[in-house]
Order: sequence, then C-alpha cells, then structure tokens
Amino acid sequence: MAKADINIPGGMRDFSPEEMAKRNYIFQTIENVFRRYGFEQIETPSMENLSVLTGKYGEEGDRLIYKILNSGDYLKDIEHLGDLEAKQLTPKISDKALRFDLTVPLARYVVMNRNEISFPFKRYQIQPVWRADRPQKGRFREFYQCDVDVIGSNSLLNEVELLQILSESFEEFKIQNSKLKINHRKILMGLAETIGAADKLTDLTVALDKLDKIGADKFHEELYKRGLSEEAIIKLDSIIPMDDTEVDLATITEKLKDSESGNQGITEISGILQHCQNLGLSTVEFDVKLARGLDYYTGCIMEASVSDSDIGSIAGGGRYDDLTGVFGLPEVSGVGVSFGVERIYEILESKGLFPDSLQATAKLLFTNFGDETEGFVLESLQKLRAAGINSLLYSDSAKLQKQFKYADKKGIPYVIVAGPEEKESGKLTFKNMNDGSQENLTIEEIIKKLE
Amino acid sequence: MAKADINIPGGMRDFSPEEMAKRNYIFQTIENVFRRYGFEQIETPSMENLSVLTGKYGEEGDRLIYKILNSGDYLKDIEHLGDLEAKQLTPKISDKALRFDLTVPLARYVVMNRNEISFPFKRYQIQPVWRADRPQKGRFREFYQCDVDVIGSNSLLNEVELLQILSESFEEFKIQNSKLKINHRKILMGLAETIGAADKLTDLTVALDKLDKIGADKFHEELYKRGLSEEAIIKLDSIIPMDDTEVDLATITEKLKDSESGNQGITEISGILQHCQNLGLSTVEFDVKLARGLDYYTGCIMEASVSDSDIGSIAGGGRYDDLTGVFGLPEVSGVGVSFGVERIYEILESKGLFPDSLQATAKLLFTNFGDETEGFVLESLQKLRAAGINSLLYSDSAKLQKQFKYADKKGIPYVIVAGPEEKESGKLTFKNMNDGSQENLTIEEIIKKLE
Repeated sequence: MAKADINIPGGMRDFSPEEMAKRNYIFQTIENVFRRYGFEQIETPSMENLSVLTGKYGEEGDRLIYKILNSGDYLKDIEHLGDLEAKQLTPKISDKALRFDLTVPLARYVVMNRNEISFPFKRYQIQPVWRADRPQKGRFREFYQCDVDVIGSNSLLNEVELLQILSESFEEFKIQNSKLKINHRKILMGLAETIGAADKLTDLTVALDKLDKIGADKFHEELYKRGLSEEAIIKLDSIIPMDDTEVDLATITEKLKDSESGNQGITEISGILQHCQNLGLSTVEFDVKLARGLDYYTGCIMEASVSDSDIGSIAGGGRYDDLTGVFGLPEVSGVGVSFGVERIYEILESKGLFPDSLQATAKLLFTNFGDETEGFVLESLQKLRAAGINSLLYSDSAKLQKQFKYADKKGIPYVIVAGPEEKESGKLTFKNMNDGSQENLTIEEIIKKLE
Repeated sequence: MAKADINIPGGMRDFSPEEMAKRNYIFQTIENVFRRYGFEQIETPSMENLSVLTGKYGEEGDRLIYKILNSGDYLKDIEHLGDLEAKQLTPKISDKALRFDLTVPLARYVVMNRNEISFPFKRYQIQPVWRADRPQKGRFREFYQCDVDVIGSNSLLNEVELLQILSESFEEFKIQNSKLKINHRKILMGLAETIGAADKLTDLTVALDKLDKIGADKFHEELYKRGLSEEAIIKLDSIIPMDDTEVDLATITEKLKDSESGNQGITEISGILQHCQNLGLSTVEFDVKLARGLDYYTGCIMEASVSDSDIGSIAGGGRYDDLTGVFGLPEVSGVGVSFGVERIYEILESKGLFPDSLQATAKLLFTNFGDETEGFVLESLQKLRAAGINSLLYSDSAKLQKQFKYADKKGIPYVIVAGPEEKESGKLTFKNMNDGSQENLTIEEIIKKLE
C-alpha cells in the first residue's frame, strides 16, 4: 500500500501521550468537581437511531449529522434507484447516525429510563460528538463534550450549584480573570414586550447573540431585517445602550416594570445573585446582553469566558423547560451547562497552566544491560512497582547514552543504572535527571526516597 | 413523535450511573497497572479512512465495518447509479469508517508518527470499537477494547512484563483461579514440520483454536478437511494426546528436537517461564494447545481465563513481527495484549467482586426544607465540599420521607437534615443510613467524622 494513503480524515485527531496527559487532567479536574456536587455519570451509545436525531438541530444541523450506511445489501428493496437524489436516498440506506451532542441523547435516555431514574436526576456525561462541519482552526469533526445537567427539578438552587461548579472548576485550573455572566430568557422576553416586539423574541435573541461579533450597526441592521420596527429598535437602544455602559439589574428592573415576564425573570436572577454573593462567588455578574444561541432555553442562561483572552465562551448553559417533550414526556424541566474542553485546553496551553507533573507516566526509567542482569532488573522493578512507583523498563539492551536520551525525551525524572557491578554490590546508581546528581543506593533506599 | 420511536439501535447500550461506576472501576484498575509499568496512553479518532481499514480483517471483517455516508450531495458524480449493486456503490459514497479494533489504528499511528515516537513505544489505549455483527448475549456492536502494546522491541522482557500486567490486574480484581497460558507460534510451526505438514501452519492453528469448543473428533475432521493427511493427524495425536493429559515443555522439547523453528520457540518460552518463576507468577503455564485465532501472531502467544467459569478467555495477545509493514514500515516488531473488559465485567458481577464503595458518588445527601433554610444549606454544603466530601443537595423542597427514599435508592450512606430548628441551633441531624442511628452535630463535627 502506498504511504500516501496513511492519513486520518480531515478534522479528526490522534492524541499523543503528552496530549492525553493534558486532556485527562482537564477531564479529571472537571469530573472531580461534578462528583463533589454528587453528580453521577452516564454514557449513551455513539449511534442513535436517525429518527431520534433528525429535526432536533435545525436544517443546517441535520446536514452536519454523520449518517451510518446500513449493513448488508442495503440497496435490495430500493426501487427506481437511478431517479433518486442523495436527500431521498439517505433515509433509505441509513437508519443510524452518530451522536451530534449530549443533550438530545440525554433527553432520549431520560424518557426511555424514566421509571428507573430517581428525580431530580443529576448527571454528567463526557463523550465525543461528531459533526460533518468544515474543519478549521479550533473546530474539529470529532470533539469531546462535557455536560452536567439536573433533570426534573424547578429549584433555582440548581442554577446556583451550576455556577458554583463553573467557578470552582476555573479556580482549580488556576484560570485568572474568568467571568460568569448570567441572564434570563424571561428578561429578554420582557425586553421584547417593552419595546413592542413580543412576537420577535427569537429574532432579538439571535441578533443579541451576535452583537459582540458584529457590532452595534450590524446588530441594528439585523434587527431591522428580522422585522423589528425602527421605533422598537430605538426603544431597545434606550434600555440597552450600545456603548460599553453596563446596565445594572436595578435599571433593568425599573425599565421592564410593566412586563410580567420581565418581573419573573428579574425575581429569579435576583435570587440567584443573592445566593452567589452569600457564597462568595465574586465572578458572577448579570449581563442583559447575554442571549445564548440555542432556541430551547426558557429560563436562566449562563456563560463563562476569560476576560484577557479572545477565545470566546469556555462554558455555557441554561434552563430548558421542555427538552423531553419531543420524545413524548412533557413538563420535565432541566438545567445544565456544557464545558468547552477544547477551548479550555487552548487557554491552559497558552497561559502555561498545565501542571509540570503531567509530563511522564513513569517516575523512573530502569536501564538495561542485557541477559546477565535481566533477572536482577525484573526483581528490582517488582519491588519498585509493589511500592506503587510507576517504573518503566528500557526493554532492549542498548548503549547507555541512548537509554538516557530516551528518559530525557519522555521527561522521566529519575534513571536507575544497574549493570553487572551494581548487581554484585546491591548498590544501584540512581540519577536525578533534573540536576544531574547521582547516588549509589540499594533498591530499598531508592523506594524510601521516592515514596 | 410517537413513543415507539424511542429506542437505541440493536447491540448498542446506555450505561446507567451504577454501570458506569463499575465500568470505571475496571478501566481504572487496569489503567493503574499499565501506568505502574510506565505505559503511556494514546487515543486515535473514531473514524479512519476506509482504505486504512479495508482488507485488514479478512472478507468477513470488511463486511462488519461500519461505513460512514459521505456528506453533502454524495451522488453528484456517480454515473449509471441505477445499475450499481451495494458492493460497488459503497466505495463511491463512503470514504470513512468506524474503528474496528485498536490494533490497525495503532499500526497506522506508529507509521504516521514514526519520527516523533521514541522507541520502544510502550502505549495503552482504551476506546470503543464498532462491529456490525449480529447482536447476541454478551456480543455488542459497540464495545470497549483495552490494549497494551510494546512497539519496536524484540526483547522477551516485554512478554514477561505483559504477563506480569495480566497477573497483577486479576489480582487487583481479586479474581481467583485465573490462569495464564502461553505458547509460541514457532512451537506450532515445529509441530507442523514434525508431522510433515509444514505448509499447513495456518490450518493447524485455526483448528487448534477451536479444539476446546468442538472436541477431538471434529478437530480431526477439520484437519482432514483442511488437507492434512491421515498420517500427519496420527502423528499429531501422538505428540498432543486428545485426552486431558498435560503435555509438558520437556516432552515437547524432545518431540520437536529436529525442528529449528520448534527449538527457537522452545528456547524463548523457556526463558519467559524461567523469569515468571523467579518473579513468583504462579498462574503462568505452558500449553501447547493454545493457538489464538489471529493470523498476524509470529512469536509468543498468551491467553487468560478463569478456571471456574465458562466465559472463555478474558484477555489475550502475543507477538506480531510485521504489523506496520502493510502501511509501508517493515520490520517493526510488536507485542501486546487486549483485555476483554465486557467479560471481566461479567466475571466480577457474577462473583460479587465489585467493591461496595462503588455504589454512590455522594457520601451524603443534604435534605431541603425550602426557602427559609436555603442559604444555610448552601453554606453548609460549601464547607463539606471544601473539605473534599462529595455531597448531594436534594434540589427541591419535598416531604422528608421522599428525600430519605431518594438517598436510600441511590445507596448514599449519610443524610443530613437541616430544617429551621437545626439552622437556629447550629446542630444538624446526621443520620447513618446503614444502621439508622442519628446524632446532632455541628457541620464541623460532621466534617471531622467523615474525613
């Protein structure tokens, strides 16, 4: 086979040991926080029935779902094959597809297992998802999502705990300048009502979501194109100034006082903010311009970003009142957030925040001098490992220099040299790769040193 | 949407929190052993180019590979669509496929990254694979593989370390009666040569691999069908008696003394067994009847099973001398084993070997009495979690009985009751769910008790 064939599909990635160590650090840190809050893990299969996924992500989303070709003679029962277009053929030759996110599978899981689940169901899920998107910098076709949700509880304490989870995670990562913005879809509804555009909530939301990227002029244009009157847009501007003035909750409360939705949203946000203040969550702040793109949010929405980075949001979520309705189980409220682990990776990398200790699995490399000392080496290694010390054997007999280079390249902090002399004396050469110092020690002394 | 739609594809599985806790226990236990031996983790993408996978698993294997339908208007450039059969159409509408095992992706990874990798490359990989097989009890279409391999080293110390890894893993699982059988493909070659069937090594291997299942008569029949002469079969019987007599290495050494391959294999196996004996690996034994199905093994082969279980092999592997040759990088030797995590799960489940501590993520449930105590509850929880105690809040205000039932169902060992009285006194009711006892303690006293 020609070497040119050896590649992986675009937008897909291999992860080297170094990358895996960093990725695992991210997952484990977040997972530990989830577990500290008593959340439990589930997994769903990579494939769902196509009918479960179709229609849940909009028309564009449907196009980006990876479909699995049916097995066997999948053309057997298809008539007039030559007349079909791809769109018509797809549902005839594919009945399964790859997971597009973790939210729809969660809804499907809850509905399927509603009799076994104890509600409130506090679950987390960390699995890859697949999207047939155009690959570009920072955008992959296979990437992990890391979701935490509470299903079947209306309590705002869930929102508070999710904000705590976000805040604690970023603290554990030692990310400075993280910000947690919150808003409420009912405040946005109140805004729409107050400017006389109650029927344009979705348009207002979609446009607001782009505001940061497109700027005030294009934002106004977008609103106008979406059917908001000039009068409404001017009113909106008087409530949310387009300069950098911060609009505080008191101001919004006053301006939306005639909207019932607005009042409800403000009451909820106030309660959440009060709890956050009592708990010392200093990074949480209200932002009336926060909109979040997704259509299914109905209550509080939240988003995390890092103020001295242009990477955008690194986590986000909110409350959705009817996620399971589409699968025949209405009136189950949920609230959740999703961590953007790929972006968190970039932040930690660019700010040098990955711990040094991640570098190598092995704490030491045991060198190899060939047949004569093999038995001695294996027995010494057995003692090291029994003491819980991760120890790597250089499998082949090779020049010592080559073996040292191997340890160095892998970032292994210690090397043990045990040739025939060391075997005889029982004193091994124990070298510290960081400062180059070396000592002659028995294996028991080495274990004591490393424990 | 009708409820009837809500299902997952056949052969696929959801994993509940209880199942996830057990699965994670298996993965973590094995992974800890891998890491103790200094192995490093990699991951490869779920999708490979179809050309990388096709032809590597035999004709039957090719059929079982899940193909991904190309995105967009995938029929655009296809002429005479109406005349095509599925077999001809597939390569035109699918250029990617799902990972079928972890071995071929490893070979592809090694070839692609050969300039960055420090050899010997000791890596492990734990990821799902997909096979469009007929689902049945214990056979799934999506399942995890858990592989550990050494690439680029001819040393038999690798075989010894892999046997140690197998043995230690089963010890950590507390699986009694595990057995590790080893044999050598060159001994099987010696056998074939000695009975005058040197050209029938593969046939002998395939038949031997089935011997346990099909019995002596059908084994002989199979050999005959595959072209071995009656004389060869009689000779074979004289070397490997079909009754339960164990054939020890000394006997085989004597019988194969005229075969060079046989002698090589015996020398290697003897060296490995000697090391195992010195290291106290009492479960490792030579078995000339061990064959392993896969074609690519060329050296030592090994297999683990549990003698008081009929579940079959729970791990297996061996040495392969030319895995990367097919991708243009010849003469790179590898050796590895794969753990059958699904079968290990069944063993641990049926023997009651999962630790009790796996049951719940949360160590305690904090009950909820509604608005008045919310702030107090959140602050108390903050202290518990800061002390590293996984604590679950019952999100809603509900009848106490319902909240206790929730804790009970989840197997949470402690419940804290903190209503208005407890808030006032600062003494919380701390209930042990196992023995029903309860005490009145401050939050600090509870933390001290649980730490």
